[in-house]
Amino acid sequence: MISNKEGARDPEGETILRDLVHKSGFEEVMSIRAGKFLSVEVEAGDKDSAARLVRKMCDELRIYNPAAHRLIVEAGRVPV
Amino acid sequence: MISNKEGARDPEGETILRDLVHKSGFEEVMSIRAGKFLSVEVEAGDKDSAARLVRKMCDELRIYNPAAHRLIVEAGRVPV
Repeated sequence: MISNKEGARDPEGETILRDLVHKSGFEEVMSIRAGKFLSVEVEAGDKDSAARLVRKMCDELRIYNPAAHRLIVEAGRVPV
Repeated sequence: MISNKEGARDPEGETILRDLVHKSGFEEVMSIRAGKFLSVEVEAGDKDSAARLVRKMCDELRIYNPAAHRLIVEAGRVPV
């Protein structure tokens, strides 16, 4: 999962919250942050090495920008 | 999390896999599917009602297209 860092603003999420969600009456919604995810299937011996491989790939190929984005790698889930 | 349905093609993930990941030597990567996520903070009594509220919001506001996309709502995680 790749998102803007916590301290950074998130114009996409802010716009969805302000111009769509709140205007439509969903007042219980406090905040929305938007981001990308990649579901990556890899050949690896275990979850840890799978996670390491995916993190290495994201770092080396600049799939995210470490200065601006936060990367979360989770192993073992098959959501997509 | 919003992604293309499993049966549907995912041109974004396919391009990342073919033109970036495999060309860079990460042969252990078998597949990549891309998608969006929204981290939504809501006021709710418990996880179940929080998840119901978010699903209702996504349905009513057409935040995803049920014909083309798969929506996964998870409560209780605070990744972003």
